Amino acid sequence: MTRTVIESQTKTVVIGFDEPFCVIGERINPTGRKKLAAELEMGNFSTVEKDALEQVACGAMVLDVNSGAVFTNKMAEDPRYADNNFVEPTLMGQLVECVQGIVDVPLCIDSSVPGALETGLAKANGRPLLNSVTGEEERLELVLPLVKKYNVPVVAISNDDTGISEDPDVRFAVAKKIVERAADFGIPAHDIVVDPLVMPVGAMASAGQQVFTLVRRLRDELGVNTTCGASNISFGLPHRHGINAAFLPMAIGAGMTSAIMNPVRQVEMEAIKAANFLMNHDPNGGQWIGFSRVIDAVNEGATFPDAAKAAMEAGRGGGRRRRRG
Amino acid sequence: MTRTVIESQTKTVVIGFDEPFCVIGERINPTGRKKLAAELEMGNFSTVEKDALEQVACGAMVLDVNSGAVFTNKMAEDPRYADNNFVEPTLMGQLVECVQGIVDVPLCIDSSVPGALETGLAKANGRPLLNSVTGEEERLELVLPLVKKYNVPVVAISNDDTGISEDPDVRFAVAKKIVERAADFGIPAHDIVVDPLVMPVGAMASAGQQVFTLVRRLRDELGVNTTCGASNISFGLPHRHGINAAFLPMAIGAGMTSAIMNPVRQVEMEAIKAANFLMNHDPNGGQWIGFSRVIDAVNEGATFPDAAKAAMEAGRGGGRRRRRG
Repeated sequence: MTRTVIESQTKTVVIGFDEPFCVIGERINPTGRKKLAAELEMGNFSTVEKDALEQVACGAMVLDVNSGAVFTNKMAEDPRYADNNFVEPTLMGQLVECVQGIVDVPLCIDSSVPGALETGLAKANGRPLLNSVTGEEERLELVLPLVKKYNVPVVAISNDDTGISEDPDVRFAVAKKIVERAADFGIPAHDIVVDPLVMPVGAMASAGQQVFTLVRRLRDELGVNTTCGASNISFGLPHRHGINAAFLPMAIGAGMTSAIMNPVRQVEMEAIKAANFLMNHDPNGGQWIGFSRVIDAVNEGATFPDAAKAAMEAGRGGGRRRRRG
Repeated sequence: MTRTVIESQTKTVVIGFDEPFCVIGERINPTGRKKLAAELEMGNFSTVEKDALEQVACGAMVLDVNSGAVFTNKMAEDPRYADNNFVEPTLMGQLVECVQGIVDVPLCIDSSVPGALETGLAKANGRPLLNSVTGEEERLELVLPLVKKYNVPVVAISNDDTGISEDPDVRFAVAKKIVERAADFGIPAHDIVVDPLVMPVGAMASAGQQVFTLVRRLRDELGVNTTCGASNISFGLPHRHGINAAFLPMAIGAGMTSAIMNPVRQVEMEAIKAANFLMNHDPNGGQWIGFSRVIDAVNEGATFPDAAKAAMEAGRGGGRRRRRG
């Protein structure tokens, strides 16, 4: 039984074949969000707090915390602020403290900078997920020792020094290599969550089928959990949420066990709640029935995050901690 | 390669593993539609015509024609009108002539009355689908000779004289028995479209997984196409279209190749169009992009059938025949 255990100080989330699909909220990420990056540069974490609360209310079970920023205004004074390696370790520490101060879900520490990964691991309560290792030699040598040292699970992205292959067999082989290298470090397969890489179906007609086939193989042959950047599938297409809302149940049916995605989207979350029910991962349909009340509120005019927040507060007093202040 | 070929006078629809999902429109069915039954009793086929046109516009590739009615007003004069065996053969002939006079898609001849099946087969142009045979001995002996005589494909429902089993292995065994009995009549497996029977997930938590597993087995072990009454899955649940819209892509991902369903529902049809694209059954996404224009029109205030009709007429002159009069 493959169980990837992720923990905050007070909550445990298990990614597994017999568990509800694990939604990892992607929004705390300054990459490509200039306004957020500018706020962070000024030490303003209000958008981060809002994104943390909203994502948890909408159903994120884990929050990805990505520190991918450089500080463009500070660069003039000090050129080191143009360097991710300088900016991210400090920023990651601040982000982790901010987020775990306001919500109680486990975190996913996400950076391309090893120093930021280590700061995140040091500051995070419980057992965070690390994001990510790849099949690149340098990355394997930098990240796997951290995974071992902190005894955490890790996202393994199936590209290597030759780039991202369009051949799914090559991507499978890269994933297998990472699992084997991790084993050399004493890291078990159940602590590797493979991202088989989702291509846009608008650019590669076989992209969907590749993922479904890869997910089944990763599960059957390597016994690992899987994740993906789900929205990639619909990149460039009209009504992309309709594509995402079919892709997620199909991926879940094929055995995908988590995704890094925007949970503040009703249509995708509805698809996941329905898929959980259909996979027999929602005993008595309690989660579906709760979610259907959120849909009712949206149909009556509420926004999805507001309706989700209201339902959460009515249901169990919220995921928000007292110590905020 | 399993290809189930269904034909009207002018159109061929293939149900197959490498084909877009075959949507069989279910609306022409007086069972449980009192108003429609009363209209048919008076020889009024206007609702049937409207349902035929709307379903085809919305994306039905085949139309189910079910003659399940008795004539309650005529019973007083002539008690034979209380008997389906008396009413249905004539009614089926009228329905088939009406429907194929107004749309050009192939038909699915649907009745529990063998005489109605035979009338439908005799009147239908091309190569209709017959609905249905079961594993019941009497039904096998009545229906399979018709299938052979008219050289048509048939829907095989996996219940038998012991009823509908909750055990999916029993339902698989019933399907296997039907395929074998059909072979004794010289009917090939590619002309059997198995309905593995969809239970409501609200009543049986494993209902979804049962279907996905059965569909894979039916495909891998018997090499047959499959169909189902898709909306059964969500019976009794709130926001059931959300359940249906996740069920259909998951079933398609598992290998389901058709469904008998209401196509005049945007959310389900959107899920199917997206799933076709993700299965690589929509070259260049042309169908998805066309459907996205229908969604645009709905978002601007049109009803789904009106938007679908407008798109169809703009696109290819419609599936409507000249000879309507």
